[in-house]
Amino acid sequence: MVAVDLGGTRMKCGLVAADGAVLHRETRPTPRTAGGRAVLDTLLETVVELSQKATADGHRVRAIGVVVPGIIDAETGTVVAENLAWSGTPVRAELIAAVGDDDVPIVLAHDVRAGGYAELRQGALTGTTNSLFLPLGTGIAAAMVVDGRLVSGDGYAGELGHTRFIHGETAELCACGQWGCLETVASAAAIARRYAARAGRVVDGSREVMELLAAGDEIAAQVWQDALTVLIEALVLYTTLLAPTRIAIGGGLVGAGETLLQPLRDGVHARLTFQREPEIVAAVLGEEAGCLGAALYAWDRVTSEEQS
Amino acid sequence: MVAVDLGGTRMKCGLVAADGAVLHRETRPTPRTAGGRAVLDTLLETVVELSQKATADGHRVRAIGVVVPGIIDAETGTVVAENLAWSGTPVRAELIAAVGDDDVPIVLAHDVRAGGYAELRQGALTGTTNSLFLPLGTGIAAAMVVDGRLVSGDGYAGELGHTRFIHGETAELCACGQWGCLETVASAAAIARRYAARAGRVVDGSREVMELLAAGDEIAAQVWQDALTVLIEALVLYTTLLAPTRIAIGGGLVGAGETLLQPLRDGVHARLTFQREPEIVAAVLGEEAGCLGAALYAWDRVTSEEQS
Repeated sequence: MVAVDLGGTRMKCGLVAADGAVLHRETRPTPRTAGGRAVLDTLLETVVELSQKATADGHRVRAIGVVVPGIIDAETGTVVAENLAWSGTPVRAELIAAVGDDDVPIVLAHDVRAGGYAELRQGALTGTTNSLFLPLGTGIAAAMVVDGRLVSGDGYAGELGHTRFIHGETAELCACGQWGCLETVASAAAIARRYAARAGRVVDGSREVMELLAAGDEIAAQVWQDALTVLIEALVLYTTLLAPTRIAIGGGLVGAGETLLQPLRDGVHARLTFQREPEIVAAVLGEEAGCLGAALYAWDRVTSEEQS
Repeated sequence: MVAVDLGGTRMKCGLVAADGAVLHRETRPTPRTAGGRAVLDTLLETVVELSQKATADGHRVRAIGVVVPGIIDAETGTVVAENLAWSGTPVRAELIAAVGDDDVPIVLAHDVRAGGYAELRQGALTGTTNSLFLPLGTGIAAAMVVDGRLVSGDGYAGELGHTRFIHGETAELCACGQWGCLETVASAAAIARRYAARAGRVVDGSREVMELLAAGDEIAAQVWQDALTVLIEALVLYTTLLAPTRIAIGGGLVGAGETLLQPLRDGVHARLTFQREPEIVAAVLGEEAGCLGAALYAWDRVTSEEQS
């Protein structure tokens, strides 16, 4: 199984066996600044080279799973993804042409939903039928498990990061064009950016802000509190609407551990009245979730084709 | 098919044929003030009498569908419903005992979800796979169609009326115990209550406020605008998270027609950036939606038991 998690800066690649064992891992840069065609060419090259490596190592490539941070049209296999400079790019057709083997099915899926699927099958959401995987990384998107199935919404669902939680004058413009989105305050990128704006100096990502927080820095405490406030609001809203029994927080921010999770639990607990209260836990698969999800989807496809 | 939509003030009852034709309709008062036991006894009596009537009219009762405004535990068949004074009441067991015929399956379901199911099968949401039925009545709950299925969330999902859209000092306490819920501003009951509070006189429900609005009353205009503002916020949020292609507004407020719908369409259109824009339409089944949904669920049960 060839699996690729194509991100805006890096592609995480793997060869994965039927039992989920990762036989090979590698990371390659995504040539985002060179444009959408360059990104696609690099993806095609990577998939072909990984397939050749698998064959050389004595494995049979049964399927190929690719996950991307964008909206995938399930019918046409085209992708819109700002981070990859793709606007309706025919990714599935190009992958099929590059692989050139009709017996190797190709699965194209959304990266966060694939990560959620991996958490559901092998991670923090195992055994749930209503749950949420919420990675807080450069951006924020959600993988939603509802009545036992991962929600797709024709590829459009799950944009919890782009719901408005900041109102009035303090709302910031989001990359999506809306104002006051969750992502503008509570993503790892937002925490670094907001600290830098207040402190008047560049920081080394959200990780440095967390270190400053631990050291008692007041600006870091304020930026962190702002993020907690909107995250609590978002989790209460999600719980009211979709009744998860478990919420797994992922992405870079969950590196803060209980400094993040305990205030979220306390804040959500204090707000709920009639709703069913979810467990709030850390996701367990980390950066591999997307790549593993790509492999799981690909194995599912092979299994379902064998059965049909 | 015996179908009962048990509301907090009235129960709407019907005998419904396999093709959806309503053979008989009647409405009975719900003895809410007499307590939960009285409500249950009245329900049992109603179901038995309707069954007898069906038999007397020469029909065979194939199943019984009852829908209620509460949280139904699918395993135990117990119901929590504040409007019916039920707190873990064993409704399914009591219905089975009262009917006393193992060959007549009993279906117990949530009223708004049943209404949404009727709109999906025979009404404004026909043909959709991702859509929303949002009745604006005494309260506000949502029936959510996601990836082709009506969401249950173990009976807890869909409480869009109890998400917070009013922040700060103007937030009002909701019956659910939270502050600033959508329902405190945009339900039919809230519109009447908020007008009365501002004008210093009691009004005859949201209908009178709508008449005042049409007549140019300034307080009515403000109360109406407040409702539109939070409804737009709620529809944008729902669209961002669950990507409906169509939203059907129901309940008493949709009696306002385009005075309600056109500002909602304009407001949602102006706010969306990357999201898929939903059609916003009026629900078409009106007050019968819940009762019809109860009958449809009951027929589904009969059909699935025949197939199994």
